[in-house]
Amino acid sequence: MTGSARLLAAAHRQPVDATPVWFMRQAGRSLPAYRRLRQRYDLLTLARTPELCTEVTLLPVDALGVDGAVLFADIMLPLEGMGVPFRIEPDVGPVIPDPLRRAADVARLRVMEAEAATPYVFQALRLLRPALGDRAALIGFAGSPFTLACYLVEGRATRDYPRTRAMVHGAPRVFEALMTTLTEVVTRYLVAQVDAGAQVVQLFDSWAGVVSAEVYDRQVRPHVARIFAALRGRAPAIYFATGAAHLLGSLAATGSPGLGLDWRVPLDEAWDRIGPDRFLQGNLDPAVLLAPWPVTAHATREVLRRAGGRPGHIFNLGHGVDPATDPGRLAAVVDLVRQVTAAGGAGGEPLSPGAPPPAATARGPR
Amino acid sequence: MTGSARLLAAAHRQPVDATPVWFMRQAGRSLPAYRRLRQRYDLLTLARTPELCTEVTLLPVDALGVDGAVLFADIMLPLEGMGVPFRIEPDVGPVIPDPLRRAADVARLRVMEAEAATPYVFQALRLLRPALGDRAALIGFAGSPFTLACYLVEGRATRDYPRTRAMVHGAPRVFEALMTTLTEVVTRYLVAQVDAGAQVVQLFDSWAGVVSAEVYDRQVRPHVARIFAALRGRAPAIYFATGAAHLLGSLAATGSPGLGLDWRVPLDEAWDRIGPDRFLQGNLDPAVLLAPWPVTAHATREVLRRAGGRPGHIFNLGHGVDPATDPGRLAAVVDLVRQVTAAGGAGGEPLSPGAPPPAATARGPR
Repeated sequence: MTGSARLLAAAHRQPVDATPVWFMRQAGRSLPAYRRLRQRYDLLTLARTPELCTEVTLLPVDALGVDGAVLFADIMLPLEGMGVPFRIEPDVGPVIPDPLRRAADVARLRVMEAEAATPYVFQALRLLRPALGDRAALIGFAGSPFTLACYLVEGRATRDYPRTRAMVHGAPRVFEALMTTLTEVVTRYLVAQVDAGAQVVQLFDSWAGVVSAEVYDRQVRPHVARIFAALRGRAPAIYFATGAAHLLGSLAATGSPGLGLDWRVPLDEAWDRIGPDRFLQGNLDPAVLLAPWPVTAHATREVLRRAGGRPGHIFNLGHGVDPATDPGRLAAVVDLVRQVTAAGGAGGEPLSPGAPPPAATARGPR
Repeated sequence: MTGSARLLAAAHRQPVDATPVWFMRQAGRSLPAYRRLRQRYDLLTLARTPELCTEVTLLPVDALGVDGAVLFADIMLPLEGMGVPFRIEPDVGPVIPDPLRRAADVARLRVMEAEAATPYVFQALRLLRPALGDRAALIGFAGSPFTLACYLVEGRATRDYPRTRAMVHGAPRVFEALMTTLTEVVTRYLVAQVDAGAQVVQLFDSWAGVVSAEVYDRQVRPHVARIFAALRGRAPAIYFATGAAHLLGSLAATGSPGLGLDWRVPLDEAWDRIGPDRFLQGNLDPAVLLAPWPVTAHATREVLRRAGGRPGHIFNLGHGVDPATDPGRLAAVVDLVRQVTAAGGAGGEPLSPGAPPPAATARGPR
């Protein structure tokens, strides 16, 4: 199977010749070629320049042999069409100089056509699809309304978003208006990505875990569910939240056909909890990639053992690639996943603990 | 019952005349008297000066009428005896200028007698106990070995402690040595607090939730269990972790007689999962204190309804008091908890939504 066919089959819970694999943040700082580009361009320039975005998105396909190519972008980009200034600070992340706190702040938000708001995103996708061919599936993404709301209300990342939670509880109508607007923007943005060539889309809800299931079900889930309803029949969707073990049933109840898991909950336990009618993506702890190879190999096999050869598993990390990761290690994980699962599910012989990484140096970053 | 008797009875799962209540970070920035002191002294000076520490610890007992007085201190203090320089930065928290990364860094750590390392902590406790009398139980605390390890390895708070997790997986013997040393230090520190007058102790594991249950059970739990074994028969202990819903069974398996819950998991669900032989503390979302009073009152009653009048509930927040909180609101919650539970468990009549805070202005900060 081609990489593209393999990933799309898994996203439809159909049989594959080997478990498909890609890595969140695979087109980033762990790749020397990316670092060289970042010496000349800042992150947003790379994302906003279709030719550069295309180049960065393709880097890991060539360097690592992954089955998915995730668009190089930032979850803040849709804010450009909403009239909300933001910047990305090194070691801090997104910063909103004028956070939204009041009803009037929310009322001022604009909803534009996605193509008009961020034309470069869709231009990059249109360049990428023919450039990729069948080598890898083209994966689009967006931040979820709740996670965007967290940044908009708080102004920057915090531990558990107290001002956002205060709005949820204390000004529920303002929060509802904000979520409604963001949901409309995110829906348009993802649908337009599919129209431009994205074959799979992932919705990142990095901060969903800061609320209880009761709050999530009442004030977050209905919005998220609208996004997945709009995507149904267009492209498979993956809903990824972190630190949200207490929300697993609620995340599934959004109607997303696929869920991404962080490393905190084993795949088999998650599948038991949400039922077999979803595909799952994950969930190797990215910190394991910084350990000696036998530890990485053992943990990779353990993820595959937990997946148990069920149809509908996309191998990934439980969070983004750490910048300190050796790209050779990522390539070795791709090879190991393919080797183990092509040999018949997770039942292959375990590697001897001291065995060298298979083909770890066979592909270097181009 | 006196405040002290009420809190200690709940910690032994014995009947009380009303649910005892205290607030994490109650002796902090929400109190005007504390802010005035902070204009003259930095946080560590307050903690290291027994008379000032005593004054700050007593502030909320007088201002809010709580049943517990938690020692004003910082979880980093035990590092003073270990030879690890640290500082507390505003808006950042603990900073370790020279993080521990290698076996040699860990081997250099010292284990001293707690009284010799931080004499001021125990001097403050000895001043506090007679000053408090029976008005409130004196609560000591420490950071858990894992949470201290996270700061020591990472150097400061991060989202999910990738370097610490890399050590857990990649250098398990170094991590084990670090945890063993920290466990010895924390055990001595808490036992000495009890010897100096602390009637209850709480172990804060702010970052336990960044690991899976498998890792926690293998590499964290045995250490934490040694601390609770050392405290058994000395004083009731409360183990508080946040964002750790996936670890609930493992946290209970440490042998701690009490667990503190954040706001993510309802009390009744937690009790169902861990069994009735533990007391529980929590778990009002502190963000609810920033909402209009009817919202606060409703959520307070909801926590009490979930507790269901079972013996062994200590009312608290699910995290520390937000600095923006009105102290009058905290006092009103104390009064409401007492009023509802003194009237016969959680079955009292609900307040009408528009009712003013009971006695919100009856007690101001002294």
